[in-house]
Amino acid sequence: MRTLKSWLAAGAAFALSAVASGASAEEGMWTFDAAPVAQINAELDTHVDQAWLDKVRLGAVRISGCSASLVSSEGLVLTNQHCVRSCAQTFSTPERDVVREGFFTTGREDERVCAGQTAEILLEIVDVTPRVSGAAAGKTGQAFVKARDAEIGLIEKEGCGTDAKLRCQVISLHRGGQYKLYKYRKYADVRLVYAPEAQAVVFGGDPDNFNFPRYALDAAFLRVYEDGKPAKTPNHLKWNPRAPKPGEPTFVAGNPGSTSRLKTVAQLDAERDWMLPATIKRLSELRGRLIRYAEESDDHRRQTRDALRGVENNLKRAYGMHQALATTSFMDAKRTEEAKFRAQVAADPALAATGDPWGEIAALQDDVAVLLPRYEQLETQAGQGSALYGYARTLVRAAQEKTKPNGERLLDYTEARLPLAEKRTLDPRRIEPELETLYLAFWLNKTREALGTDAPSVQTMLGKESPEAMAARMVAATKLGDPAVRAALWAGGLDAITASDDPLIQFVLKTDADARAARAAWEERVEGPTDRAAERLALARFKVYGDRVYPDATGSLRLSYGRIAGWKDGDREVAPTTNVAGLYERATGAAPFDLSAKFAERKAQLDPATIFTVATTNDIIGGNSGSPLIDAKGEVIGAVFDGNLPSLGGAYGYDGTTNRTVAVSAAMVQQALLKLYGQDHLVKELNAK
Amino acid sequence: MRTLKSWLAAGAAFALSAVASGASAEEGMWTFDAAPVAQINAELDTHVDQAWLDKVRLGAVRISGCSASLVSSEGLVLTNQHCVRSCAQTFSTPERDVVREGFFTTGREDERVCAGQTAEILLEIVDVTPRVSGAAAGKTGQAFVKARDAEIGLIEKEGCGTDAKLRCQVISLHRGGQYKLYKYRKYADVRLVYAPEAQAVVFGGDPDNFNFPRYALDAAFLRVYEDGKPAKTPNHLKWNPRAPKPGEPTFVAGNPGSTSRLKTVAQLDAERDWMLPATIKRLSELRGRLIRYAEESDDHRRQTRDALRGVENNLKRAYGMHQALATTSFMDAKRTEEAKFRAQVAADPALAATGDPWGEIAALQDDVAVLLPRYEQLETQAGQGSALYGYARTLVRAAQEKTKPNGERLLDYTEARLPLAEKRTLDPRRIEPELETLYLAFWLNKTREALGTDAPSVQTMLGKESPEAMAARMVAATKLGDPAVRAALWAGGLDAITASDDPLIQFVLKTDADARAARAAWEERVEGPTDRAAERLALARFKVYGDRVYPDATGSLRLSYGRIAGWKDGDREVAPTTNVAGLYERATGAAPFDLSAKFAERKAQLDPATIFTVATTNDIIGGNSGSPLIDAKGEVIGAVFDGNLPSLGGAYGYDGTTNRTVAVSAAMVQQALLKLYGQDHLVKELNAK
Repeated sequence: MRTLKSWLAAGAAFALSAVASGASAEEGMWTFDAAPVAQINAELDTHVDQAWLDKVRLGAVRISGCSASLVSSEGLVLTNQHCVRSCAQTFSTPERDVVREGFFTTGREDERVCAGQTAEILLEIVDVTPRVSGAAAGKTGQAFVKARDAEIGLIEKEGCGTDAKLRCQVISLHRGGQYKLYKYRKYADVRLVYAPEAQAVVFGGDPDNFNFPRYALDAAFLRVYEDGKPAKTPNHLKWNPRAPKPGEPTFVAGNPGSTSRLKTVAQLDAERDWMLPATIKRLSELRGRLIRYAEESDDHRRQTRDALRGVENNLKRAYGMHQALATTSFMDAKRTEEAKFRAQVAADPALAATGDPWGEIAALQDDVAVLLPRYEQLETQAGQGSALYGYARTLVRAAQEKTKPNGERLLDYTEARLPLAEKRTLDPRRIEPELETLYLAFWLNKTREALGTDAPSVQTMLGKESPEAMAARMVAATKLGDPAVRAALWAGGLDAITASDDPLIQFVLKTDADARAARAAWEERVEGPTDRAAERLALARFKVYGDRVYPDATGSLRLSYGRIAGWKDGDREVAPTTNVAGLYERATGAAPFDLSAKFAERKAQLDPATIFTVATTNDIIGGNSGSPLIDAKGEVIGAVFDGNLPSLGGAYGYDGTTNRTVAVSAAMVQQALLKLYGQDHLVKELNAK
Repeated sequence: MRTLKSWLAAGAAFALSAVASGASAEEGMWTFDAAPVAQINAELDTHVDQAWLDKVRLGAVRISGCSASLVSSEGLVLTNQHCVRSCAQTFSTPERDVVREGFFTTGREDERVCAGQTAEILLEIVDVTPRVSGAAAGKTGQAFVKARDAEIGLIEKEGCGTDAKLRCQVISLHRGGQYKLYKYRKYADVRLVYAPEAQAVVFGGDPDNFNFPRYALDAAFLRVYEDGKPAKTPNHLKWNPRAPKPGEPTFVAGNPGSTSRLKTVAQLDAERDWMLPATIKRLSELRGRLIRYAEESDDHRRQTRDALRGVENNLKRAYGMHQALATTSFMDAKRTEEAKFRAQVAADPALAATGDPWGEIAALQDDVAVLLPRYEQLETQAGQGSALYGYARTLVRAAQEKTKPNGERLLDYTEARLPLAEKRTLDPRRIEPELETLYLAFWLNKTREALGTDAPSVQTMLGKESPEAMAARMVAATKLGDPAVRAALWAGGLDAITASDDPLIQFVLKTDADARAARAAWEERVEGPTDRAAERLALARFKVYGDRVYPDATGSLRLSYGRIAGWKDGDREVAPTTNVAGLYERATGAAPFDLSAKFAERKAQLDPATIFTVATTNDIIGGNSGSPLIDAKGEVIGAVFDGNLPSLGGAYGYDGTTNRTVAVSAAMVQQALLKLYGQDHLVKELNAK
């Protein structure tokens, strides 16, 4: 792990300043209503202004778990191949391995709907902190969570009404210090336009993932549709396939998923000691099962193209995050920052009077350790990737929750959020029964392992069956793979659900009370008290540091600024760019360092000097995948698809000397469209005036 | 995990007193030359004396990685089935799944030699501390390690000469405070006599492993031979198949493998943050690969019976150890103990003058983190279970080391130790090529993952091949599965090795320099300085606490004392014994809770009241498997095969309120021999006057 040496070498020099003392240069995932424009322009010598920000915001797109951007006036959306891989996987059949072969079109009639996919463009941000805080005032534990979520559900409903073109979402920022209503233009018809052959994207495989130099053609195109036609999108960003220049300013507008930079040291200790090890253990075993499964046949390999890569990516991320927290100098810096912040709070009588939120949070961590296995296995990780289980749970919960008033529902089933759940459940998609069985058996096994054979919830779940037999039986007999069956159950409501003899529906009906109890216990003893304490920390932070602090990532639109730059990995200087020639030098012919068919075949057609990928100092995290890499003029010069290994520690703190964003250049994407895949029509559209 | 709640509940009440303040009641893995006889007799109301100790010592047997005992005058040895499983596995063929079916005999002619197995009985302990310390005086880093090991090699050679019936081994105790020469009577012809059908042993599978109540018939018999005939063993222990009684005193004489109770807090932090997570990650993925491999066919399941169970056991152990170190109250207790010890040392001018060994050790932990991946992947974990790779490495290193003087060799290749390496390499054993390929590919993959694709040692190893292709190629072409080929290479020495075109020999020749360099770096920067500091800690501990401290486990003979007792798991009282009726109640018919064929078929022949397993307060750890459970009279009333989940934390500290040893009763073993397997001849031998 090259990461580690860098961290250890960096030692106490760590720039973890966001923890308590305001962001340092090039650090930060800033909301668009609080971007540090003066600071950006001073540091980068740029001319960012409100118009620039608005333009970029309206060109930035959120898709499921990823980021993207509008790059033509007819709804063309740039993102990563790995962000559309699960869509391409659903088109893949034993006869045609779409992920391996790539997805190409000759015209719009070839574009195909991605199941469950939406595209969202941020229109407006409204501060709703007083409403949410007011509704939850004086409450603690689960009562706090419920009151807060009820108000959020109400605000979201009021904000967008029943307009199917809008989505309203209340985002909690600063770990509870602020609540903002994000209003999005929503497209629910999103189609796949282009995804290159897999090996062009995963060249270097897991070994090169989160590394640099990197040779991954990780770009793809979607298109948003409206009323069955390509949507008009005049607010798109300009595509600029020029060579990126080392040192030039770069911006990333995207949706970083989650960071933990504002968490207390006690919370980080618990992540290092309980959360991450459990994740590493679970994903490592799943990875092992999937690797062997893939090796069994070409068709198994086809089935796992999306799944295995996803598991490996998440595992590598979790291990990298763990290594950051395991590094003494890293945690020492965190402790120093926290001590400084505590001293500043103690010195302010008004703040000091609000008690000891650090101590309160520390006291909760034993409960975190005890409650986590139940909460994860029964609730957050339930089904472990089984689409069929996901359908069953959503159908059962939607039916149950719809019988309740909006303010008493689980948040994801409130009126404003139900359309997304419905779309994800009812959109047709291909199911792979063998893989479903593997996932379900794995999850049932791990649940028994984590909770113990004799736990009542495990007895309820398994009865006298083995995990393997139960998984095989349920997958063989369920009809939930049929979208019409799902639609009928959705429409039929609780009567249809309780009358269903589908084994997965029955399984969820039997086990969901335990899952809800696990969630309730977590909310009462962990989430509620943590969020109440974190709220006070946020307010203290605002008072002490003002607007120099940015909120932790929350899967909502953020702006990061930086430059194209290499870094020093120990003694080795890492150059900021790669080119096509480098790919051919790195290729060995043996997986995963084998060239894709097209790269092998058309070497002579490519310009060896074309810049393939770039490293930048932008501060990003998982969820930023697919974000446009934007230059000072607001034009798209690449697609962000990764960070380097040190950037994994970015979950907890940004170190500008080593953390790097990795993007594929627009120049390379365009060259591939033309020279490798004959997608001239897309190039034409991208470059239309 | 039931462990966790117990730990958290126990809180600061932890009896981690061995850390610095002397052992508490029933704690301790005592050497036979320093057993606390007075304390034992006072606490248990027993009459242990030197004669009792000598008798038990001469009846106790060390086998590879496990413990055992002599139980007849004709060389019959009691141990666990899981300690002979790898032997039975080597007899297993596609036609006959010996582990699944069990191994039974009608007479001694059916007994079969276990490849690589030896049995050792401790004859004498001699203090050689002055010699070892003197030889290493004034040296540091790798020079210290080399000087120490050279002296150890010399002492071992002088101690036993060339007598093939003896083995001499210098054991480092108290992490370097003492060196003792252990002189063993060695039997190199060890044969399998009896191993029950696997499902009778692994009932409950991984879920029940390290749990209690437990229904595992985990006992087996070996026999030691001399000159081709059963050895005369008049010093055997008396077999007593009576019902064990709750509360009665029990002793365990066996070879606990490794504990870390005397390590400093900085070392424990590194175990929690670096060593154990790496192990958990590696073993989890291997487990996943093996599980899926086993599911592919009956023959794959047969091949993995030993391997999968072993991996799961080690993984569960590592995770349990990690959970102990992740528990705040546990580490708080460790910190308190260390602070107390440091204060006592600081108060003693002579001790204080020896510097700050705790600080020195803490300063080494960054190097531990950096050097560990190379050291593990290239040296200690090399080959990850591949027998063929193990042969190749031993053959290459033996050939290289034999050209050097004894004092300059790697310790395992010194004259006193070569016979064991030779036996393990040359004994015939069945090889499973598919499984070998899986192991090798896995190891090559993990090595690339841990060190990085571009690391020179990885480039040397893989060249332009993929791990999978390289593993398949080497396993297909190697001839090292043939014992005659191995014997010829062993006899041929370095000339034969360098002339060999065997791909595995060539692979080791090409890569071993990097492995040796990783070892050298570890010795120079971690092992040497750690051991030098630990030595001073040991001497300080002796001075402050006298003989109230016992050494950490080192795979050498120890005595533990305790009682048959249940415990409280949270609110639940766990009874100290189980009986046959309980097995039938727990059986569900679904794996792994399905009855073995014989248990299913012969239920009516068994006495439901027979005590199946017992829990005791004895302080044990992995390596103690197979130890005799001995009563106050020195008679064998069971075979130790496991601990409960809290006992996994026993690697770092003993908590008498929850740590439990688990043993199968001699009564149950005898009933199974008679009623299930028709092994009346063994029962007769066991009960001979």
